Amino acid sequence: MANRRIAEILRSGQPDESLQVQGWVRTKRESKGFAFIEVNDGSSLANLQVVINQDLPDYEAILKKLNTGAAVEATGVLVASLGKGQRIELKAETVKVYGEADPDTYPLQKKRHSFEFLRTIGHLRSRTNSFGAVFRVRNACSTAIHQFFQQRGFLWVHTPIITASDCEGAGELFSVTSLDLKNIPRTENQAVDYSQDFFAKPTYLTVSGQLEAEVMAMAFSNVYTFGPTFRAENSNTSRHLAEFWMVEPEMAFCDLEGDMDLAEAFLKHIFKYVLETCPEDMEFFNERIDKSVLATAENIINNQFERLTYTEAIALLEKADVKFEYPVSWGLDLQSEHERYLAEQLFKKPAIVTDYPAQIKAFYMRLNDDEKTVRAMDILAPKIGEIVGGSQREERLEVLERRVLAQGLKPEELWWYLDLRRYGTVPHAGFGLGFERLVQFMTGMGNIRDVIPFPRTPQSAEF
Amino acid sequence: MANRRIAEILRSGQPDESLQVQGWVRTKRESKGFAFIEVNDGSSLANLQVVINQDLPDYEAILKKLNTGAAVEATGVLVASLGKGQRIELKAETVKVYGEADPDTYPLQKKRHSFEFLRTIGHLRSRTNSFGAVFRVRNACSTAIHQFFQQRGFLWVHTPIITASDCEGAGELFSVTSLDLKNIPRTENQAVDYSQDFFAKPTYLTVSGQLEAEVMAMAFSNVYTFGPTFRAENSNTSRHLAEFWMVEPEMAFCDLEGDMDLAEAFLKHIFKYVLETCPEDMEFFNERIDKSVLATAENIINNQFERLTYTEAIALLEKADVKFEYPVSWGLDLQSEHERYLAEQLFKKPAIVTDYPAQIKAFYMRLNDDEKTVRAMDILAPKIGEIVGGSQREERLEVLERRVLAQGLKPEELWWYLDLRRYGTVPHAGFGLGFERLVQFMTGMGNIRDVIPFPRTPQSAEF
Repeated sequence: MANRRIAEILRSGQPDESLQVQGWVRTKRESKGFAFIEVNDGSSLANLQVVINQDLPDYEAILKKLNTGAAVEATGVLVASLGKGQRIELKAETVKVYGEADPDTYPLQKKRHSFEFLRTIGHLRSRTNSFGAVFRVRNACSTAIHQFFQQRGFLWVHTPIITASDCEGAGELFSVTSLDLKNIPRTENQAVDYSQDFFAKPTYLTVSGQLEAEVMAMAFSNVYTFGPTFRAENSNTSRHLAEFWMVEPEMAFCDLEGDMDLAEAFLKHIFKYVLETCPEDMEFFNERIDKSVLATAENIINNQFERLTYTEAIALLEKADVKFEYPVSWGLDLQSEHERYLAEQLFKKPAIVTDYPAQIKAFYMRLNDDEKTVRAMDILAPKIGEIVGGSQREERLEVLERRVLAQGLKPEELWWYLDLRRYGTVPHAGFGLGFERLVQFMTGMGNIRDVIPFPRTPQSAEF
Repeated sequence: MANRRIAEILRSGQPDESLQVQGWVRTKRESKGFAFIEVNDGSSLANLQVVINQDLPDYEAILKKLNTGAAVEATGVLVASLGKGQRIELKAETVKVYGEADPDTYPLQKKRHSFEFLRTIGHLRSRTNSFGAVFRVRNACSTAIHQFFQQRGFLWVHTPIITASDCEGAGELFSVTSLDLKNIPRTENQAVDYSQDFFAKPTYLTVSGQLEAEVMAMAFSNVYTFGPTFRAENSNTSRHLAEFWMVEPEMAFCDLEGDMDLAEAFLKHIFKYVLETCPEDMEFFNERIDKSVLATAENIINNQFERLTYTEAIALLEKADVKFEYPVSWGLDLQSEHERYLAEQLFKKPAIVTDYPAQIKAFYMRLNDDEKTVRAMDILAPKIGEIVGGSQREERLEVLERRVLAQGLKPEELWWYLDLRRYGTVPHAGFGLGFERLVQFMTGMGNIRDVIPFPRTPQSAEF
């Protein structure tokens, strides 16, 4: 008999079809002479109702095993449901219980649990409605990202996780070593003897694949990374992870205008794709987690993003009839409250701020003719603040060398990156999107630890 | 004017179309009164020939700049090509040189370079025919993998890179730490004071996402990982990397038969997809790198894989009229020479060997009723040996606990993994595919360092 996924049965199953389902019991309701079992297989938020009649052999014994969390396989015939809440249900002909779940010890009973508690049972939390929806939406976001770039001829490139270059300065680094921490070998001068380490030099976990993505863009024109990145910052907040996934496209023969156009189309594509493929999960978030997520998604899809320079943004913030906690002044970075004021209150839609002061941005961003600002862009979204950060890259060798030195970096360590400007250099641009921030934004989940299966944060690397 | 990628122009461009191309000069051929420039933008192996006539303003000055490696933008009209080797060419109306490449110092001149030499210029090697083809095929393999699983309703799950569990025993581990290696803090007993480390305990780079993938399969039924994994083994060979990507599907309600069926369909899908989407690159490998790659691909696509048990395999090897270097005896693991004999010489197609001795396989594989063998399976392919390794997992709590103890592991550290058997356990199975091994196999490239953009190997973490 055909084994079918529950999402598909609920969508297109017809009365009188015979089929088999496999999943886990969410709830059991006993009535006189029969029982209703809600079965979920992770393919959808909704369960399939399985009706078991007392005529089934071993009815009592089976029913006793069918508690919340038990693994079950049922065969039977679909029938139109008389109850409310579902179009069809399965009239069981055979029921097999694979694994039971003792109601006295199984932590996921029917009552609501706090997300804090569920984080302590990260190996079980995906079996709840909320986390089921989160990880289906997370998967849909991933698929939308690959689809967007592959349709446009971008190559997915795998940039290294272990890196010997600590020079990008994007954040604090984790060391990677094969040395025995209990017994670090020393040189004669009492320095760490890295000649005995695996790579024969200090190595770290990457904070960004951008510099290597630029290498690949100089051969394939359009590429993107989508992989894990790391920060060893001791930030115990609802928006920081020590390990998170990042998407970083890089385009040769592209300036900041092209970069902004791509980023805007990219965000619109992802939101559209998720609304189309996960409508039920998105409804759930809108009802249970954050009543604004559907409106925010529509806002992003339907509005042309506002574009303004940093200098214009500062002028608008100075004029604002709002008391900010942090000062507003040309040369200072925008704080989250400023970003949210612009996107939420002033424009009421996403805004792209460009041309930030050079001193507050990375060395690789292209210097403007004013020698004071760089061709950076940040996309600020209502509710979340910065969601994308990008720039046109400095493609002029002499200017880049000057900027490298000015920021206290060593040109000899960046020899290969500088070579890209020495041989066949072109205007190029790219951006980075923090993937978990996107999923958080999409779902309205308050804590970033709840949108990644196994979060890594200060003092915590469970499962 | 429309900017178009060269792959698309070569495929469907028609005479009299006006367009713009952007790319890098591969070669320049000067003739009387005009010059032929071969331009490549990374979208295809083939170049677009751009014809520049001496009537172009600044003809001499521009031509001097158009050396191998220079970045160029040309606009013009497509014309049918009179020369051999191309259907159409671009008659240039404007030519702009973005970045030059000094022929005296640019390392990638027209002559052939060894792969060893090209590894030392990893930031430039993607601009060669061979590496261009490798990374296009690598991208196609990635896309085929996502497509295969997404079409079947599998969720892509991101399992953690940093892990505190060192218990899988799949290989030597890299430590991850935020401690200062020069000055490791100590406890009173002179042990490493991990309370001061970022995660407050020892952490490592993951060797496999399988255990966490099992967590997710127990909620979503069918999932897969596709991400980086690590081995700190000092293996300086053409088949080992310290950092490599792995694909690991995991299916609930699935036994070893279902696992083998999926793995076989999976491999066939990837090879088919790559032959269909990268025919030119695959032809190139077949001509220049390994004359058997097309035949091997067809072999995989068109043959039903042979299936036999380990015990049967041993009997066949004992009967073989071949002198093996390593001994053949029930209880010993198969060596590469044995695997290749079976796949290449005996069956002449991929073979799946199942039911290996328990002692030589991991603790999580399902014990057979003979108590001597486990429901493992390895797919052996002609030319490369083992390409996929998988198993049905031990879903019985008591048996798993016994196996954990027998292998010297600590059940208390695997509490969450054991919980999966305590609550709603089901038969489940999965496999792992080393992604770089697949790309190596697909392309015929002799050294695994040449199928990943930035290889990490003992003593080497460049770029």
